Amino acid sequence: MKKTLLALGLGLALSVTAMAAQDFRLVIHGGAGNIVEGRFTPEEEKAYHEGLQAALKAGYDVLAKGGTSVDAVKAAINQMELNPIFNAGRGAVFTNEGKNELDASIMDGKDLTAGAVAGVTNVKHPINCADLVRTKSPHVMMVTQGAEKFCAQNGAEIVDPKWFFTQHRYDQLKKAQEKEQIVLDHDGAKKTSNAELYIDPLMYDYKYGTVGAVALDKHGNLAAATSTGGMTNKRFGRVGDSPIVGAGTYANNQTVAVSATGSGEMFIRTSAAHNVHTLYKYVSQDVQKAGDAAIKEVGEIGGSGGLIILDAKGNYAFPMNSKGMHRGTIGPDGKPMTAMYGTEKLRHYSSK
Amino acid sequence: MKKTLLALGLGLALSVTAMAAQDFRLVIHGGAGNIVEGRFTPEEEKAYHEGLQAALKAGYDVLAKGGTSVDAVKAAINQMELNPIFNAGRGAVFTNEGKNELDASIMDGKDLTAGAVAGVTNVKHPINCADLVRTKSPHVMMVTQGAEKFCAQNGAEIVDPKWFFTQHRYDQLKKAQEKEQIVLDHDGAKKTSNAELYIDPLMYDYKYGTVGAVALDKHGNLAAATSTGGMTNKRFGRVGDSPIVGAGTYANNQTVAVSATGSGEMFIRTSAAHNVHTLYKYVSQDVQKAGDAAIKEVGEIGGSGGLIILDAKGNYAFPMNSKGMHRGTIGPDGKPMTAMYGTEKLRHYSSK
Repeated sequence: MKKTLLALGLGLALSVTAMAAQDFRLVIHGGAGNIVEGRFTPEEEKAYHEGLQAALKAGYDVLAKGGTSVDAVKAAINQMELNPIFNAGRGAVFTNEGKNELDASIMDGKDLTAGAVAGVTNVKHPINCADLVRTKSPHVMMVTQGAEKFCAQNGAEIVDPKWFFTQHRYDQLKKAQEKEQIVLDHDGAKKTSNAELYIDPLMYDYKYGTVGAVALDKHGNLAAATSTGGMTNKRFGRVGDSPIVGAGTYANNQTVAVSATGSGEMFIRTSAAHNVHTLYKYVSQDVQKAGDAAIKEVGEIGGSGGLIILDAKGNYAFPMNSKGMHRGTIGPDGKPMTAMYGTEKLRHYSSK
Repeated sequence: MKKTLLALGLGLALSVTAMAAQDFRLVIHGGAGNIVEGRFTPEEEKAYHEGLQAALKAGYDVLAKGGTSVDAVKAAINQMELNPIFNAGRGAVFTNEGKNELDASIMDGKDLTAGAVAGVTNVKHPINCADLVRTKSPHVMMVTQGAEKFCAQNGAEIVDPKWFFTQHRYDQLKKAQEKEQIVLDHDGAKKTSNAELYIDPLMYDYKYGTVGAVALDKHGNLAAATSTGGMTNKRFGRVGDSPIVGAGTYANNQTVAVSATGSGEMFIRTSAAHNVHTLYKYVSQDVQKAGDAAIKEVGEIGGSGGLIILDAKGNYAFPMNSKGMHRGTIGPDGKPMTAMYGTEKLRHYSSK
C-alpha cells in the first residue's frame, strides 16, 4: 500500500513535471543572412553559439523564476546588445556619417501594449528604451532626439555615443564607403536610380546581426522584441522593420509572438510579423506553416531573411528563406539549443 | 428592325456605361473624431464639404484621364495639405516646442512598393516626400532631417517651416500648454503615469484632420496614402500610425486599399490597415465587414477612429467607431459625394 501511494505520488510528480516542461519557452535570433558553412572560423562559430547561449540563459533565469515574458525578452536582448558580435547595441553598424543609430521595439501579447524607438544614439539598451515608451507614455513610437530625451528622463542608462564604437564595424563602413554603397544588415538588395543608395548584392557579407527574442512565461503570456543597429553606411534617417510594430515585432496571447530579421523593407511592405499572427489565426494555427507563408510573401517581392515564432502552447519555428540564421531556444530543462546554418539542427553547442 | 438595333445599341451603351461606372473610384477622409451635429457652424460645415470636394475633384481629374491610382491619391492629398482646415501640410498642429512635424506614407497596390516619412518640418507636401522615398530609394521609411535631406535632393518642394503656421493651430497649442496636456488629433486618450503626457479626454475638440485617400484606377490598380500633422503639444518625437505602413496605410491589388485616422497608437498595436487586408483576404471578402472587424479590434484596446477602404472591384466603406469622420468619394460621374457626421448619408453638398 505504501508502495502504491509512492507510485501515485511519483506519477503526480511526473505529470506536474511534464506540464512544467511546456510551461515556458524562450526563442531568439541573432540575425539572418548569407550564413553558410565554410565562411566562419571555428572561433567565430564559437562566439556566435556562446553569444546565443548567454542570451538564452539570461532569459531562462527570468522565466524559470516565474518572471514575465516581457522581462525575459529584455534580458535576452540586453545580453546581445552588450555583445559586439551582434548588430545591436554595442557592435551596431555605422551610418554614412559615422554614427550608430539604433532601433528597437517590444510588444506584450497580454494587452497588446507596444513600444518602439528609432534612430537613438546614446541609449545603452535600446530595447529598454522601447519598453519605457511602452510603459511610461501613452505612445507607441518615438524617434531620434525626442526618444533619447524621453528615455533619459525616465531612467534609461545613457552612454557616450562612443560606447557603440567597435573597430570591425567601423572598418565595414570604410570598406562600404570606398565602394560608395549602402550595405544591408541582411539579404535583399534592390537596385535604385539613386547611385548613392545602390546596394551591391555582393556586399551581403556585412549584414548579420539584428537580434530578437520571443517568450512564453509560466503565466501563459507571450512577448516579442527586436533590436538592431540597422545598415552599414545608411543615409537619410532610414528606418527598417525592427522598430515597426507589425513588421519586425508582434505579439498576441491569442496567437503568436514574432520577431523578424532580414531585408527590412520587404518585411515592412508585407507587415511580416502581423502577417504571421493573421495567418496563424485565420489559416493554419501552425507556427511553421504560418511562418513559411509569411516568408513566402517576403520572398515574392525580392526580400529574404527569417522569423522566430512562438505560440501560446509553446510551439515554435524558425522559418527562413536566407541561407542561415543565428538562432536558439531554451525551455524548462535549462539547456540552451543553438544553430546558425540553414539546415543545421539545434544542438547543445560545446567548443570542447 | 432599325428600332431593335437602336435598342440593342442603347443596351450596349448602357452596359458599357454601367461597366465604366465601376471603372475607377476615389475615396478620401479628412480625419475622424468627436464630429457631431451642433458643434459646427454652417460656415465650418461648408469649409469641410468644399475642402473634401476640391480634393475629390483633383483626384478625379487624374483618374478620369486614365492616370494612376498613386497619382490620384497624391493629387487629392496635396489639395488637403494646402487647406489649413485639415491637420496635414499647412494647418498642421504644433508640437510642444512650437514646431510642425509632419508624417506621411503611401503604398502602391500593384507591386507593394511603399514610402513613408516621419517628423519632417520643411517639405511642402509630405505625401510627395513619402512617394520620393518609395520611388527613388530602396527604402520604405526615412525620418526627420535625413528624410528632409533626401527629399530636397530628389526635387521635393522645400518651404520655410513658417509655411505651416496657422493661427488657429497655434492657439490650440497655447490652450493645450496652459493645461499642460497632450491633445490627440483624434479620439482615444489614455492616462499615463507621466503627468506631462497626460491626455485629457475633454480635449478631443482639437484633433480632427489627418487626411487620407484610396483609389482604384482604370488599369485596376489600387493605391493608399495618409498625411498628418500629428498631435497638438506632442513631445519626444512621437510618431503615430499615419507614416506606418501596415498601420495607417496599406494597399494590395489582390484585396484592398486602406487609410486610417484615429487614435494612432491603437491603430499601430492592431496593425489596422494590414488587418483589413487580411480580414478581407481570409475571412469576409467584404469591405464593410473587414473594416468593422478591424475597428472592433481597435476599440477593444480603447482606441477610436475610422477607416476608408476600397477593393479592386470598386466596393468601398467608411467603418468607424468615432462620432464622425470627414469623408467623401467620387466615381466616373464626377460628382463628389461627402459627409461628416456618423449617421449622415453621403450627398452632393451645395451651400446654396
